[in-house]
Amino acid sequence: MTLHWTAQARDGAARAGTLHTAHGEVETPVFMPVGTAGTVKAMTADAVRSTGARMVLGNTYHLMLRPTAERIARLGGLHRFMDWHGPILTDSGGYQVMSLNELRKLDEDGVTFRSHVDGSKHRLTPERSIEIQHLLGADVTMCFDECTPFPATEEVAAASMRLSMRWAARSRAAFQPREGHGLFGIVQGSVFPALRAESVAALTAIGFEGYAVGGLAVGEGQEAMFACLDTTMPLMPADRPRYLMGVGTPADIVGAVARGIDMFDCVIPTRSGRTARAYTSRGTLNLRNARHADDGSALDPDCSCVTCTRHSRAYLNHLFKAEEMLGPMLLTWHNVHYYQMLTRRLRGAILAGRFAGEAAALAAAWAEDAP
Amino acid sequence: MTLHWTAQARDGAARAGTLHTAHGEVETPVFMPVGTAGTVKAMTADAVRSTGARMVLGNTYHLMLRPTAERIARLGGLHRFMDWHGPILTDSGGYQVMSLNELRKLDEDGVTFRSHVDGSKHRLTPERSIEIQHLLGADVTMCFDECTPFPATEEVAAASMRLSMRWAARSRAAFQPREGHGLFGIVQGSVFPALRAESVAALTAIGFEGYAVGGLAVGEGQEAMFACLDTTMPLMPADRPRYLMGVGTPADIVGAVARGIDMFDCVIPTRSGRTARAYTSRGTLNLRNARHADDGSALDPDCSCVTCTRHSRAYLNHLFKAEEMLGPMLLTWHNVHYYQMLTRRLRGAILAGRFAGEAAALAAAWAEDAP
Repeated sequence: MTLHWTAQARDGAARAGTLHTAHGEVETPVFMPVGTAGTVKAMTADAVRSTGARMVLGNTYHLMLRPTAERIARLGGLHRFMDWHGPILTDSGGYQVMSLNELRKLDEDGVTFRSHVDGSKHRLTPERSIEIQHLLGADVTMCFDECTPFPATEEVAAASMRLSMRWAARSRAAFQPREGHGLFGIVQGSVFPALRAESVAALTAIGFEGYAVGGLAVGEGQEAMFACLDTTMPLMPADRPRYLMGVGTPADIVGAVARGIDMFDCVIPTRSGRTARAYTSRGTLNLRNARHADDGSALDPDCSCVTCTRHSRAYLNHLFKAEEMLGPMLLTWHNVHYYQMLTRRLRGAILAGRFAGEAAALAAAWAEDAP
Repeated sequence: MTLHWTAQARDGAARAGTLHTAHGEVETPVFMPVGTAGTVKAMTADAVRSTGARMVLGNTYHLMLRPTAERIARLGGLHRFMDWHGPILTDSGGYQVMSLNELRKLDEDGVTFRSHVDGSKHRLTPERSIEIQHLLGADVTMCFDECTPFPATEEVAAASMRLSMRWAARSRAAFQPREGHGLFGIVQGSVFPALRAESVAALTAIGFEGYAVGGLAVGEGQEAMFACLDTTMPLMPADRPRYLMGVGTPADIVGAVARGIDMFDCVIPTRSGRTARAYTSRGTLNLRNARHADDGSALDPDCSCVTCTRHSRAYLNHLFKAEEMLGPMLLTWHNVHYYQMLTRRLRGAILAGRFAGEAAALAAAWAEDAP
């Protein structure tokens, strides 16, 4: 059987379920830490596992350039390379080639671009993206799509979405179905409800193991993002996993789970961990702030991670001031742990039929330690 | 009882024993990873423990400037601050104030200098250094001494050594004896045997819980260092622990253990870990070297650390090329583990009465993977 999702409970539009993959089962809602270049930055694989994370994301764009997909395949695949034995979702490279690479040329067939590593010329097409993700050994493969600029006129957004839909059909044709593996389509259409509806219809006509919502969290704001989900989610197949790409803050995640999203990835917990920004059950903190210098208390008294059970805010403040690597290491660890705790709490609330109350309680607690 | 050392076996001049401290027992020979600013760089305390390390070093100079000894004392001491529950040895600040600080002024009473952190003015005297180490909560406190420049004329070396001996007496007077805590004297005298002998005599007349050899590994070379140990070690009290400060490479350690040294500290395993240099049972390697890019084998097939059991040389090569923090993290972990494995092997050989054979076997193996 290919990769699939089974429902366990619904509470309003929020869903709890299980994703069945070649590398094990994953309870949803799930947050996937981002392992861009074959490592969740500043964490060992053991540390990632210790947070409760069961699935991570890898980036096609970064890995195809260095160390290359062929090299990873020769070395036994991405799971073995990075010592990650749970499922891995890989993106298609479409987003990064647009957002990180200025020397690109788009045509109907694909994109040509130069490597940011060594300036060498590369080409990504739907077929090549699927091949790379296959070489990496992805459990979830993403369709190759165009990243629609934001803001975009409805005309530009429509043309971009329709190109992505043609590429989605080519991605489907190129993908080799395998036990426990699956291909996800990506809904595009910017903030235009009619385009999003057209995109869902195009994708469901092709048929995918899961459906992602792309092109959000690109500057449109939380309200517009939620409005887009409000109109789009009811159109998406109820029996398939739904993945909101690149989202988001804890509040974004709660709001998206409320609207029926099952899967998330985002660099916020890892990137923030490197820049002294903490996400906790009491809100967000900047650990460089001098007010923490003499604070012997735990970063988050409700957290059971190594950072919160072994160290003080004062120690974290010291590490960041002294520019010690252990600062980013410990804070990334905490932030990823916090995101896992958050999705686990949301899941528990859905199973217990008290999602709305839990969402309100979380939001109230976040206000406590606001800077 | 104050901190003390008990002998278990001798093999030639090499010794195996146990150091009894307020924070537990430590088997010797022991290598202490360096935790300069309250962290063994790029390692969690758990990772340090997992290598078998039982004792670490903290730096008075760095900690007095940031976050300050008084702050650490308010927060419960250095053990708690850095989550290290085994013994800690602190240096006196004497070496760093000379080697890292160019804005210093030495007089008979002590040293005045400016902070490299914020330019503020500070003063270290024997009494203040002992007070700081007390505030940090050191198990082993080091006498405040002058770091004799190298090379130095015999006249300069003699004057510097004699100042350090006067400071040693003042350090002894300032130190408050406590259960399981101890003060170590530091033998100085550069490469001049007569001065080293005079220094040992001066220190033993005062009386210390342990004796360190200072002022070596400063550019004199391994041969001169071993020659100095050859003449100095026989003069040092046989019933006290002997600590060779700031040493060294694996070969330095083997040679020093052969001459009767029990304790070591050095930044080599940690600093090298951050610059892609690996110390292994087969020799040293630079992991940035392209020859590792497709090498799926373990860094050190004889090592049981997380780096060697979970990852390939190809992965480490990738991490360093991609400038991922996990490269320094994993390689520091391995190097510290290797140093622990090395001292454990030396200890086992001493206990078994086959030290010379073990030393020869180690040296032969190091030649295997030489670049």
